Amino acid sequence: MTAPPFRDVRGRGFSRRSTLDAAWAWIDGRVAAPSARPLPLAECCGLVLAEAVAALGDWPAADRAATDGYAVAAADTLGAGSYNPVPLTGAVAVVAGDPLPPGCDAVIPYESAQAAGPFVEAVDAVAPGGGVERRGAWMAAGSPLLPAGRRLRPADLGLLAAAGHRILPVLPAPRVRLLLAGGPKAGAPEQLGDMLAALVRRDGGVVEAVAALPADMDALAETFAQPGADLILSAGRTGTGPDDAAPPALAKAGSLDLHGIAMRPGGSAGLGSAAGVPALLLPGEPMAALAAYELLAGRAVRRAAGLPAALPHATIQAVTARKLVSEIGCLDLHRVRLDDDGKVEPVASPGWPGLAAAARADGFVLIGADSEGVPDGAPVTMYDFTMYDFTMYRFA
Amino acid sequence: MTAPPFRDVRGRGFSRRSTLDAAWAWIDGRVAAPSARPLPLAECCGLVLAEAVAALGDWPAADRAATDGYAVAAADTLGAGSYNPVPLTGAVAVVAGDPLPPGCDAVIPYESAQAAGPFVEAVDAVAPGGGVERRGAWMAAGSPLLPAGRRLRPADLGLLAAAGHRILPVLPAPRVRLLLAGGPKAGAPEQLGDMLAALVRRDGGVVEAVAALPADMDALAETFAQPGADLILSAGRTGTGPDDAAPPALAKAGSLDLHGIAMRPGGSAGLGSAAGVPALLLPGEPMAALAAYELLAGRAVRRAAGLPAALPHATIQAVTARKLVSEIGCLDLHRVRLDDDGKVEPVASPGWPGLAAAARADGFVLIGADSEGVPDGAPVTMYDFTMYDFTMYRFA
Repeated sequence: MTAPPFRDVRGRGFSRRSTLDAAWAWIDGRVAAPSARPLPLAECCGLVLAEAVAALGDWPAADRAATDGYAVAAADTLGAGSYNPVPLTGAVAVVAGDPLPPGCDAVIPYESAQAAGPFVEAVDAVAPGGGVERRGAWMAAGSPLLPAGRRLRPADLGLLAAAGHRILPVLPAPRVRLLLAGGPKAGAPEQLGDMLAALVRRDGGVVEAVAALPADMDALAETFAQPGADLILSAGRTGTGPDDAAPPALAKAGSLDLHGIAMRPGGSAGLGSAAGVPALLLPGEPMAALAAYELLAGRAVRRAAGLPAALPHATIQAVTARKLVSEIGCLDLHRVRLDDDGKVEPVASPGWPGLAAAARADGFVLIGADSEGVPDGAPVTMYDFTMYDFTMYRFA
Repeated sequence: MTAPPFRDVRGRGFSRRSTLDAAWAWIDGRVAAPSARPLPLAECCGLVLAEAVAALGDWPAADRAATDGYAVAAADTLGAGSYNPVPLTGAVAVVAGDPLPPGCDAVIPYESAQAAGPFVEAVDAVAPGGGVERRGAWMAAGSPLLPAGRRLRPADLGLLAAAGHRILPVLPAPRVRLLLAGGPKAGAPEQLGDMLAALVRRDGGVVEAVAALPADMDALAETFAQPGADLILSAGRTGTGPDDAAPPALAKAGSLDLHGIAMRPGGSAGLGSAAGVPALLLPGEPMAALAAYELLAGRAVRRAAGLPAALPHATIQAVTARKLVSEIGCLDLHRVRLDDDGKVEPVASPGWPGLAAAARADGFVLIGADSEGVPDGAPVTMYDFTMYDFTMYRFA
């Protein structure tokens, strides 16, 4: 907190902020989906199929009983009826799903049989194939099952296992490194690790490492440049002050391509790369970090996982209960709740979020950079904090 | 597959099946939420808060700079103006979020200061508290943050961490044991482990163990009765045939309370308890197992996690493109997809599901036991396979 050279501090301000569209274009251009890799089925829930998958074999794999009863040679039941019971010396008791025993080509239900001492008698005839599920009846070998690009759901795992798959060609989850600033600064971003880790997992990434973000610029540049991650997210030290080491450290480790985004909160975010790995700098204040994660970093994680880039939240169309103000030239993220009439009301303003208020939010509304805000009673789209599209979000 | 005594086989059929409502009442009566336990924040995403949580301290914890600039004693700027610059010998450069240095009670932005050789001069006066965020301005100690029963979302972790919480009183995830039948039977339920594990995690449980379901009834009864799980799910051997060991084994290990549910597919499911632990028997055929999981086991897992019992899928109101047939006295689960016109069409029938067809489903429609089905063009509710309510579903 000693006085810095005056001009240096002013020169690092955000007089020219990038638009959110420019930041998205940067993410879409720089963050690529991973290369396909074969992985065991058990590790594939929530991952994206790299190739279309077809049935490996017939299902069922052999003719089998479709019902509980007795497997027979149909010819042995010829002429059987309630007035002409026919002894079944070759009958075998089966339950639905049992493979047909050798020499049998039909299954008669218990209702079509009766006990006769130690033997069983048919009291109804059956045609060949009666009571039988034929090999391949449900699914023939080679049948297309799931297309490339499918995000694997729990039920898909059952289907693919039944179809004989044990290893799948998938896009592996990207390894995301979290660097968290510590110390007495506003947001105490070191406390954000659990939130950011949960969000990264939600978006299809795995946390490769959680490390401290050094206050020293040279040490931070080395940390940025260490190999092992597919994507780097930092939290804290993104502003324009003298101890905001993240932007210059990223510039030293590779490139700082954008710094200062026309969005509130979270406008001090930065984007660049370190030793060829895309890196996003998030603010340290918790609500600003969350906004910058949702609008910037989440998109990068989803892109790196091979998922659609768009926001995955379910949307609700509603009208405002109060006006939502916005700054021209800046996209504003308003945390909102649905009131008792189903109308959208802000729980806080972007400029003064209020942590306690944020907990009451049901979702958020985005007011574009070209708008001064929306009046009371205007239609808006609410992004729901509680409802997510599983085609994008995983249960890992 | 040797011939069993005739009457025994018939006596174990489903002549009297329980209604789905009776099965739900059993689950709601027998499966209880876990006792609260303190857990580290990092383990709490997706768990349910057992008690209301309030802020432990003020936020911010001390007066701090609200803007980048110079921390000053406001009195030192008295009378400053662009024509009357006032030297600031005690000024300290700060960035937004820095604690106020001792002796300072205001922050002037860079715009209100100018360089004068090695010194800084104020060119505008500031009142005490100007440019300062007061201790507790965002959140005072004791402010209510989140209510009891809240399922913790990623953003909540950031809020609670910022509010000083490191350990939370939560309902721990229930330990679920999976027992999977093997062998040549229809569904090869041993292949269902990955699907069922993903569904258990989705519903807030953790898989305690995955074990084989012994074909021998006595061995299976012992397996059921082993301690360590809060809930037991088995797959396979639930029917009425001679080698369907799961129902009698559960009866031996504790009690078989319901066996045979009026639903399709999945109607051979059973419910009971083993050594006091609730146990659900799911069929081994993959699509029947999935239906029985969604309609029975998922409810039990959610109850055991302290979550709402209801189906968590987002619902879509649509009309049918074709009729959906149903059996009177039996709830039918129809796998459906939305066609190009947004209408609901079946991808298969409950009686003949077809694995390949199931992969094309966007969700399912339930046709109640009191209905013979719905005609073409009728309004129905589709439960969406891809959109889930996070208030119930976790990103673990």
